[in-house]
Amino acid sequence: MKRREFVRKATLGAVAGSALTTSTLAGCGASPDQGGAAAVQTRPRVRWQLISSFPRSLDTIFGAAEVLSERVSELTDGRFTIRVFPAGELVPYNQVLDSVQKGTVAIGHSASYYFIGSNPALAFDCTVPFGLTVRQYNAWMYHGNGLALTRELFADFNVLNFPGGNTGTQMGGWFRDEISELGDLNGIKMRIPGLGGKVMDQMGVNVQVLAAGEIYTALERGALDATEWSGPYDDQRLGFHKVARNYYYPGWWEPAPGLSFYINRDEWAKLPADYQAALASSAAEANIDMLAEYDKKNPAALESLLADGVNLRPFPQDVMLEAERISKDMMSASAAADPAYRKIYEDYIGWQKQSNRWMRTAEHTYASFAFREK
Amino acid sequence: MKRREFVRKATLGAVAGSALTTSTLAGCGASPDQGGAAAVQTRPRVRWQLISSFPRSLDTIFGAAEVLSERVSELTDGRFTIRVFPAGELVPYNQVLDSVQKGTVAIGHSASYYFIGSNPALAFDCTVPFGLTVRQYNAWMYHGNGLALTRELFADFNVLNFPGGNTGTQMGGWFRDEISELGDLNGIKMRIPGLGGKVMDQMGVNVQVLAAGEIYTALERGALDATEWSGPYDDQRLGFHKVARNYYYPGWWEPAPGLSFYINRDEWAKLPADYQAALASSAAEANIDMLAEYDKKNPAALESLLADGVNLRPFPQDVMLEAERISKDMMSASAAADPAYRKIYEDYIGWQKQSNRWMRTAEHTYASFAFREK
Repeated sequence: MKRREFVRKATLGAVAGSALTTSTLAGCGASPDQGGAAAVQTRPRVRWQLISSFPRSLDTIFGAAEVLSERVSELTDGRFTIRVFPAGELVPYNQVLDSVQKGTVAIGHSASYYFIGSNPALAFDCTVPFGLTVRQYNAWMYHGNGLALTRELFADFNVLNFPGGNTGTQMGGWFRDEISELGDLNGIKMRIPGLGGKVMDQMGVNVQVLAAGEIYTALERGALDATEWSGPYDDQRLGFHKVARNYYYPGWWEPAPGLSFYINRDEWAKLPADYQAALASSAAEANIDMLAEYDKKNPAALESLLADGVNLRPFPQDVMLEAERISKDMMSASAAADPAYRKIYEDYIGWQKQSNRWMRTAEHTYASFAFREK
Repeated sequence: MKRREFVRKATLGAVAGSALTTSTLAGCGASPDQGGAAAVQTRPRVRWQLISSFPRSLDTIFGAAEVLSERVSELTDGRFTIRVFPAGELVPYNQVLDSVQKGTVAIGHSASYYFIGSNPALAFDCTVPFGLTVRQYNAWMYHGNGLALTRELFADFNVLNFPGGNTGTQMGGWFRDEISELGDLNGIKMRIPGLGGKVMDQMGVNVQVLAAGEIYTALERGALDATEWSGPYDDQRLGFHKVARNYYYPGWWEPAPGLSFYINRDEWAKLPADYQAALASSAAEANIDMLAEYDKKNPAALESLLADGVNLRPFPQDVMLEAERISKDMMSASAAADPAYRKIYEDYIGWQKQSNRWMRTAEHTYASFAFREK
């Protein structure tokens, strides 16, 4: 038997280091306040499984869960280990929240807009059309009301949520034909899920829902005219640029998708305080690290796509304006119909408005100058 | 004697948990592979002092060191404690690097551009005029060559550096009179330190260096015509808006000042691996947290300043262009004169150029639309 396995079996039931310390010390004939043995303590062996909503092939977004897992292990001297499973290996991507709620696994990593069927307000934990940028989102989550408000929502699922990664503003996707004005969207067949799909539907798009593996062939055969996915690094691997040559931006329906770690509250309560701190700190690290990794990888992928002759195009202004109008109407209607939704919505848009004034001042003015084409 | 003090004395010499585990267990008559006592281990009691380059009154930037300190304590069940001292209490703000190098204290928190007198290339660890934005900086640090290159520089100081906070793009400062064109800078007396001051000097500004406490009175009396400081939240507390009513943006000399934790390498080497991990993870958390806190606080402060009648003004385009030209010439000259500077400079500007192409696509286009005045 390996030592670690033995240790695990000996201590798996223990969840509070301090309690075990006392009993162990008593066994050595020393009380906690007498002698050098008082410095000895135990850290219980805990093994968790983590289910991700993402496949291994999306290595950056999947990797955020690995960042958390590795750091938690380091922080606990290998005593708290978290094994990360990709989507589909234990459960499908859209059953992550449900599985954590039931306690089938202790922790999940997902995008909360996958679960707006359970509660529409969960979208604010991830992103909404024309919503916050990533800096506005982190400010709202860590120093505004965001974390408290989303935790109220997740309490209904017996889940404690932590921000756990972001892609930044995504691309608007791949179109076989050019979109010069709003009217060009009419009747085109586009794969776009979620709220973005609902807005596109109201702009005349024939919205399709296809699994990831089916998109390329549908685009190639003309069963689809367009698809959205993520950003250059992830998109390039799926090869859409080979069959749809117009790459539109920005993905106004995903201005800053925030990933979250979901932790079953019963499992959380069993952890000693230092293990809880290890999860919280590692989640914050995974949050900043995933964005930095995408920000590092996307530029080279975009260069490569452009070298391949892809046409980079902004959405026409009338598309942006109409999409914004529809999005705001849609969310206002949800707020009017549901007090729980309204509570978080009003805080979110109030913060957005206040933040925009500052964000467009120093940061955005500098960026407009620094990023200009030279 | 408090229990914690006792524990510290009993274990202060211990730096490797595993080594102590064995001897402690031996004292209990059990080998590591026999019995439940094998789960017991020690975590040594370690007490560090941290010197900050910032006063307590700058609560957000000073607070980043407290975030690290509190999290490290939680992660180690209170066994690794770091007491945070504000600038001037143990050493002045500009002796933080030197003190950590000498081992007077184990850890410091500072802005590396304070130390360009020791090595001009240290500026890249913080910020340079017309340099990276905060997302570009984090991508470069965590997933580009930034951390490896800056660590080469800090190795000469026996220091290991970790990114530890950012303000985002700062404001350009407070001017008694309006600046309508480049020529208006000629002869004005402005308090602006560092590289920004060198660039301003070349644009005809009469550059002044004053301590923080002297600025307000000098502005009020007309001994100064202008001063830069930070952003709305910090600036408002110093009251400059009462005596200089034009608030310019952006602070092109500080597009994303990154703070750093400096750790003495000998002290680092004495730590067990889990304590090292605690420092690394907490530094990353402090990094994302400080920016989020400024991003939360600055909008309200800006609103309040505007309500007070402050004139918010962008620097004229000819000022921006000339400042950029001078900045680039200055850094090119440093690179030509110093191979060590050139090594990091070329990586930095190569990354900046590659990143700008992507950053201006989805993220910046979305932000331009979302932040527009409505």
